Amino acid sequence: MSRVVVDVMLKPEILDPQGQAIARKLPQLGYEGVTAVRQGKRFEVEIDGEADEAALERVRKIAETLLANPVIEDFEVRVL
Amino acid sequence: MSRVVVDVMLKPEILDPQGQAIARKLPQLGYEGVTAVRQGKRFEVEIDGEADEAALERVRKIAETLLANPVIEDFEVRVL
Repeated sequence: MSRVVVDVMLKPEILDPQGQAIARKLPQLGYEGVTAVRQGKRFEVEIDGEADEAALERVRKIAETLLANPVIEDFEVRVL
Repeated sequence: MSRVVVDVMLKPEILDPQGQAIARKLPQLGYEGVTAVRQGKRFEVEIDGEADEAALERVRKIAETLLANPVIEDFEVRVL
């Protein structure tokens, strides 16, 4: 059994209102020094067997079709 | 300027219906070999200056109060 992480973030050119709302709130709560926040998703995918290149390719396909929206999001697959 | 990542995942003992729904759907879509999926959040936090211990401690405080719910979620802070 192996564990693979898929990080999904909005593409840099896509506005992120959730992240902006958090960043705006911080100074009011007394936290200075944060210039930006972007919010994304993180998936932990447990797979049978080893996380070899074929398995990672399969997870990439899953990420592309089910976990991320490639029009507005970038994703990254890595072994945990 | 530095970039810090905050990964937020449900604690292992907390059920994750979103992740389970994805895992259940995969075989129907032709993807075999995935035994579990857990969905969490990933924040990219941009801070002024260096990501030294004091800055990371500040981000940990932000994560605890604003980004994660410590009752049901674990979080991890790391420099990108």
